[in-house]
Amino acid sequence: MPALALNTATLGHNIDGHGAGWSPERVIDACAARGLAGIVFWRREIGARAVEIGDRVRAAGMEVTGLCRTPYLVGRNAASMDEVRAAIDMAAALGAPVLTVVTGGTEPGTRGLSETRKRLTDRLSVAADHAAGAGVSLALEPLHPMFGGNRTCLFTVRDALEVCAVVGSPRLGIAVDVYHVWWDATLAESLRAARGRILGHHLCDWLEDTSDMLLDRGMMGDGVADLPAIRRAVTDAGFTGIPEVEVFSRDTWWRRDPGEVLDTMIDRFRRVC
Amino acid sequence: MPALALNTATLGHNIDGHGAGWSPERVIDACAARGLAGIVFWRREIGARAVEIGDRVRAAGMEVTGLCRTPYLVGRNAASMDEVRAAIDMAAALGAPVLTVVTGGTEPGTRGLSETRKRLTDRLSVAADHAAGAGVSLALEPLHPMFGGNRTCLFTVRDALEVCAVVGSPRLGIAVDVYHVWWDATLAESLRAARGRILGHHLCDWLEDTSDMLLDRGMMGDGVADLPAIRRAVTDAGFTGIPEVEVFSRDTWWRRDPGEVLDTMIDRFRRVC
Repeated sequence: MPALALNTATLGHNIDGHGAGWSPERVIDACAARGLAGIVFWRREIGARAVEIGDRVRAAGMEVTGLCRTPYLVGRNAASMDEVRAAIDMAAALGAPVLTVVTGGTEPGTRGLSETRKRLTDRLSVAADHAAGAGVSLALEPLHPMFGGNRTCLFTVRDALEVCAVVGSPRLGIAVDVYHVWWDATLAESLRAARGRILGHHLCDWLEDTSDMLLDRGMMGDGVADLPAIRRAVTDAGFTGIPEVEVFSRDTWWRRDPGEVLDTMIDRFRRVC
Repeated sequence: MPALALNTATLGHNIDGHGAGWSPERVIDACAARGLAGIVFWRREIGARAVEIGDRVRAAGMEVTGLCRTPYLVGRNAASMDEVRAAIDMAAALGAPVLTVVTGGTEPGTRGLSETRKRLTDRLSVAADHAAGAGVSLALEPLHPMFGGNRTCLFTVRDALEVCAVVGSPRLGIAVDVYHVWWDATLAESLRAARGRILGHHLCDWLEDTSDMLLDRGMMGDGVADLPAIRRAVTDAGFTGIPEVEVFSRDTWWRRDPGEVLDTMIDRFRRVC
C-alpha cells in the first residue's frame, strides 16, 4: 500500500468527550501494527509531551506527518502571536515538518474578505519567520465556504495561493482537504498553479446528505467526492507527501472501536482513493 | 428608494408550519402599502390560482418579479420533465418573467460533478425550449457549496455560466444570491463574464456564526457579507432587474410579525445594501 497517515481527528481525538479516548501511545501502537506511515496529532493531545510523543512515533517506525493546528490568526477569536509561536514550537518539538493553519474568521467590525486577508498576511509573515527558525512549514488550509464568518477567510486553493504569493515565504504552503474542496470545478487548475506549495492532503468524503456542518464527514467511499480525480490532481501538482485520513464523524466513526476505524480507512484508501 | 421585491421565503412561506401564514392577498396588500415594487412567490403558495394571484399583484401596482423554483432536474430526487414544464407554465400563468432553477444534487451512482452536469445540460435544453414557448426565462441559481450532494451541482457563478454556455439558450441565465456567493473572491470577475445573463439578485446576509445549514440566514446588515460590493458587481455586470430579499430564518425573522419583517428589510435595504 502507498504510504498513509492517520489524522487523530478520525478517532475523535480533537474534541473533548468524543472518541474512545485512547492515549497517544495506544494510537501509535495501533497505527504501527497496521503498517501506517505516519500520524498527525492535534495540539490538545500533546501538551508538554511533544518530544516524548514524537520520539515514540519514530521508534515505532513512523513519522509525525504534521500537527493540527494553529490557533486562529484573525477574526473575533484570534490568538496572540505568542500562542501562534507556541504552536509552531510544539510542531518543532514533535518533529512534525508541517503545522496546519486555520485562519479564523472575519475581523470584527469588517465585512467581506479584504481587510481580514490583509491582517492575515501581516500575521502570517511574522509566523512564517518564526516557523523558518524552527524548521517547520505552515500549511494554509482553505476551509469549506460554510466555515466563513467564524472559522476561515480562505475558501479555495486559489484563495490560499494568493495569500502565499503575498507573504512570499518558502515556509508557507497549502493543505488540500477533500471535504473542503471537492465541489470546486477549478480545483485541478488551482492545484497546477500551486505546484511546489502543497504540503498536505487530507482524505475523507462529502456525504450526499450532510447533517452537521462540522461533525458529519464521510469515510472515503461513502460520499460523492471524486477521490481518485482529486488525488490525481494533487499528485500531478507535485505533492509527494503522505496523505492523511481526517474524518470528523460524531455519530458514526467516533462511536466505533478505533481499531475498526483504522482497518476501515486503510481498506477504503486501497480501494476507492 | 430604488425598486425592491419581497421573496416570500422571508416570511417563512416556503416551508410548511413556519411563518405567520398570511394569504397571498394579505402579503400583496402589505407589500403594496410599503411601496415595494415586486413579489417573488414559491410554487406552494400558488396552487391553481396563478392567474388570479398574478393579476392581484399587478392591480396593486407591483410586478410578480419571479417564481421559486423548479423541482430538481438531477440527483436522487429529480422530478419528471412534466413536473418541470408545469413549473414553467405556472410562472407563465402568474406573469412571472423568471423561474429560478435549483438543480438538485449528485446523480445516484456517480461521484464528482461531470456526469451530473452532463445530465443537467440535457434536461435544461428541454426545459429552456419549453420556457421559450411560455415566455419565461430560467435563472440558474448557484447554491452555497454546503448544498452539494443533495441540492445542487452548481456552486459558483462561474459554474452556472459554464452550463449556460453549453445549453446556449437565450432563455437561460443566472440568479445571484448573496448567501450563496458572498465568500467567492472571483465573484466580480465571474459576474463580468456573465454580463447579460443575470436574471435575479437575492439579498440577505451571512451570519458570522451560522447555526443551521438551511434556515439561519441573516437580514442584510446582520452578517459579514460585503453587500454594497456585491450589489455594485451585479449592477456593473448589467443587472437592471429588481433585487429581492430572501431570508430563510426559522428562529429569528420567521417568528416576527410579517409587517415588522417587511419594515426591517426595507430599512436595511436603504441603509446597508
